[in-house]
Amino acid sequence: MVLVNGLATESVRIFDRGLTYGDGVFRTLPVRAGRPLCWRLHYDKLCADCAALGIECPPEDRLIGEVGRVIEASPDCVLKIIVTRGEGLRGYAVTAGAEPTRILTTSPLPQYPATWFADGIRMHLCSTRLAIQPRLAGVKHLNRLENVLARREWTDPAIAEGLLLDMGGNVIEGTMSNLLILQGTTLLTPDLSRCGVAGVQRARIMALAGELGLAAKVENLSLAQLQEADEVALCNSVIGAWQVRELAGKVWRGGSLATRLRKLLDDRTH
Amino acid sequence: MVLVNGLATESVRIFDRGLTYGDGVFRTLPVRAGRPLCWRLHYDKLCADCAALGIECPPEDRLIGEVGRVIEASPDCVLKIIVTRGEGLRGYAVTAGAEPTRILTTSPLPQYPATWFADGIRMHLCSTRLAIQPRLAGVKHLNRLENVLARREWTDPAIAEGLLLDMGGNVIEGTMSNLLILQGTTLLTPDLSRCGVAGVQRARIMALAGELGLAAKVENLSLAQLQEADEVALCNSVIGAWQVRELAGKVWRGGSLATRLRKLLDDRTH
Repeated sequence: MVLVNGLATESVRIFDRGLTYGDGVFRTLPVRAGRPLCWRLHYDKLCADCAALGIECPPEDRLIGEVGRVIEASPDCVLKIIVTRGEGLRGYAVTAGAEPTRILTTSPLPQYPATWFADGIRMHLCSTRLAIQPRLAGVKHLNRLENVLARREWTDPAIAEGLLLDMGGNVIEGTMSNLLILQGTTLLTPDLSRCGVAGVQRARIMALAGELGLAAKVENLSLAQLQEADEVALCNSVIGAWQVRELAGKVWRGGSLATRLRKLLDDRTH
Repeated sequence: MVLVNGLATESVRIFDRGLTYGDGVFRTLPVRAGRPLCWRLHYDKLCADCAALGIECPPEDRLIGEVGRVIEASPDCVLKIIVTRGEGLRGYAVTAGAEPTRILTTSPLPQYPATWFADGIRMHLCSTRLAIQPRLAGVKHLNRLENVLARREWTDPAIAEGLLLDMGGNVIEGTMSNLLILQGTTLLTPDLSRCGVAGVQRARIMALAGELGLAAKVENLSLAQLQEADEVALCNSVIGAWQVRELAGKVWRGGSLATRLRKLLDDRTH
């Protein structure tokens, strides 16, 4: 089912600035047994991302009501919420009185190979680099051409994800996931103040790392540092966490970081 | 009138990647007496921009047929053509067999103040900087959040346009126009190989500059160089050209560059 501004329709107006300029933000989160996981964190992030663009975030009670309707027929699914600035006339200036557009849609939970969870994944090193744009860094906005170009770099279905560096050569993230690096007893994640998407599970992991006996640290990371790491994992709301087993010739054997992270994320009430 | 894939509708599917990722390109051009101006150049640019993203450009005859239908009731208008990668499933990977989406729409020719053409315009110096992304530079794609943020920096209707620098401090363009600078007998325009949109009228002007007795040159330009220029003008397909009269405290008096450029653009068959 799809709801657009509370109406059951699969269409949006072509004047919507989400289409014309990518002027909006989105969230993707799993729903289990009719419960959207980590709702509080996702709604807060939606509001923060809207604020970064100067879009008024839809009130929580309205959104919760619509989420309830959209997941009614599919209590286990992936829920996607898009909020755009709404309709506009031609031109970049925001049309006075425009109402943000709410788009809610569900899709089946993806069926990734079980080995990706059990043994880890192979990762492609993308040649597409992320541009430095502090004004948009961290925000999950609708301007995702860099991710699209990066994802087009490989077609081998055995490769689960691509690694993105920024223009300065810093390691940033996967095309659809955040990166976590274990170095001794320190859990590192790349600084996302200049580019990248700061995901909800990354934030949770960094907040909870102490429970694994790890010190959490956000910093700039080079590809060499990544390749020297003891363990590497990826996270997002749909997969939880995957161990990285192979990247650009480097192979990591064993390692339980992703397993520990998945357990950490699953065990905590959210 | 609006045509989406040849059908009279004002809606597009919410699964269209133009909406979900800004995965598409667009053109904006004036139509006069039923004739889309500079059609050849616009269609060629549309194809080049599609190619930059790996999207198959709609065949010219199909597009011409649809343009004819959409402008039938409004022979003098602004025509906008959007081409997206088409529909996709969730995720950045391109869905096999997706057909590009064609969206054609018209809007009234804008009524800018006559003084902007006669006397020139005031320009705001934007604090929003353009990110360096050679993979997307020059392409008029649907990821336009930087332009949106920049345009939100001013509300004074007496200010016609905003000047965008890149992250390195190079002068690049206006939010909706390209920049031309007269320095003696040289006509300069900023290099757009790292960011910015390479417009059709900029290309025409640079190709035709010799007819004005000017040497055309593409180069990196600093704000200081811009402010020391003899004359500054903006161009795009809808306005033709405007003289810049004021920018960040600097005032240019007199000058006929924009008038000469408009005449040049109008006189040539296109």
